[in-house]
Amino acid sequence: MTFTRSHARLPATVEIEIFDEYGESRRQAIAAERPLTLYLNKREIVTLMTLGDDPEALVVGYLRNQGLLTEAADLVGVHVDWEVEAAAVVTRHLPEDLEERLGHRTVTTGCGQGTVFGRLLDSVPRQPLPETPLRQSTLYALLENLNACNETYRSAGAVHGCALCWGEEVLDFVEDVGRHNAVDTLAGRQWLKEADSLRADTFYTTGRLTSEMVLKVAQMGIGVLVSRSGVTQKGVELAERYGVMLIARAKGRHFQAIHAGGRLALDAVPPVRPGDRRGQRRG
Amino acid sequence: MTFTRSHARLPATVEIEIFDEYGESRRQAIAAERPLTLYLNKREIVTLMTLGDDPEALVVGYLRNQGLLTEAADLVGVHVDWEVEAAAVVTRHLPEDLEERLGHRTVTTGCGQGTVFGRLLDSVPRQPLPETPLRQSTLYALLENLNACNETYRSAGAVHGCALCWGEEVLDFVEDVGRHNAVDTLAGRQWLKEADSLRADTFYTTGRLTSEMVLKVAQMGIGVLVSRSGVTQKGVELAERYGVMLIARAKGRHFQAIHAGGRLALDAVPPVRPGDRRGQRRG
Repeated sequence: MTFTRSHARLPATVEIEIFDEYGESRRQAIAAERPLTLYLNKREIVTLMTLGDDPEALVVGYLRNQGLLTEAADLVGVHVDWEVEAAAVVTRHLPEDLEERLGHRTVTTGCGQGTVFGRLLDSVPRQPLPETPLRQSTLYALLENLNACNETYRSAGAVHGCALCWGEEVLDFVEDVGRHNAVDTLAGRQWLKEADSLRADTFYTTGRLTSEMVLKVAQMGIGVLVSRSGVTQKGVELAERYGVMLIARAKGRHFQAIHAGGRLALDAVPPVRPGDRRGQRRG
Repeated sequence: MTFTRSHARLPATVEIEIFDEYGESRRQAIAAERPLTLYLNKREIVTLMTLGDDPEALVVGYLRNQGLLTEAADLVGVHVDWEVEAAAVVTRHLPEDLEERLGHRTVTTGCGQGTVFGRLLDSVPRQPLPETPLRQSTLYALLENLNACNETYRSAGAVHGCALCWGEEVLDFVEDVGRHNAVDTLAGRQWLKEADSLRADTFYTTGRLTSEMVLKVAQMGIGVLVSRSGVTQKGVELAERYGVMLIARAKGRHFQAIHAGGRLALDAVPPVRPGDRRGQRRG
């Protein structure tokens, strides 16, 4: 398995001149956004708009989550060239129905990545998901640990973060201009780096729990999906089908648990304050 | 031009059972998310995940913004059938390079819609954009008027809103599970309903100002783009190329103006309070 890259790590943010409501002009960091065209065995697959922080993991994870690569062992090499904004992935095996898959496009609510090739939305994870239990106290500790991770978001905003977690521990965290780039990058790292994150039992995203997000997490074999944002109907349907426990609107002490069954242990119920019951509305 | 639809208007939200941090279970409204497969002259183009509120306008606006339909007059009919989750659009003229366009996919940071066919990111709006001036007081009045619009977001979250505006007036407002569905629906309504919104001079979105959003607004001939969220590098680059003034992080009295030149008149500078200078970080 070989890797080549035309540049060292690219900066995740760039500075621009803005002026604010006081008429004061200042430098403001913003998120980088770079096109990267993905070729699989010389076949153009897609162009991704990305922060560009870990392009090898992004393209491999994208192909994995799109079902265009099924085994890490099939990978021969990944070559990223930012000069021509291209990533070439070489594999020993292509899916037999590649053309058929590429013929169908489902544009989902992916922030940063909305295309599901083939009939992925109808696909099912290979093995049943673990019915991982979760303690409320562990969830709160995890949310606090995650606060330290969102570096680019804090300086520039306009990015989503995703994390592979084990209990309250953050095993791996990725930010990108789209939450689907972030989840794909995590999936790619699992394959490329035999990451510690393989033992992840919880997935966290700042983005919404829509159909594609639930699907990708289920296919990573993870049974607990936590988000700072809300859920959509299709996300809830798929989570029920696959047995994913959803923790939506997880912020501070708030959360909304869906399909929790007996899996969530309420061992840290906060004192009731009037404001607490409003819940969160941010999408 | 004919329209048929298999159902009356579908509900934008559905209720599910959740339980919160107090262990109390309650009904919670969530955003609907429905697949709609788009066929153009019987050719399958894409499947969109949508709230389903205005599917005819969505698919027409999608085709318009993707450059797959160039003239409203070419439209013969739109037929939506929710039974089979399909929308059939019939046009008199297809782009000659349709196959070539469909062959290239750019997956952008579109929330709800991330695919740009062909080489849209390299395309330029037909005519130069108007260098519309904007008063700070008008911006503030517009932001207040917009607060009344986000119905689904307030009840369910997990949706983005977009609006066509004229000065402080909101001409048309659309919510969908993705901000690109919302902007496409607005573009479609302009064609289908000879909407009053044709005179729009300002575009508002709750979503981030990324490459695809700037591109679509420029192609609608609008020179002022306002967002509650942040900007990305490519969004700023395209805005400069097309002459779009960006107003990012527009919330309450805050905003960050980019490429404003002399177009933004500061006629309502707020009194300085220490907290005001922190700016907003929400992506």
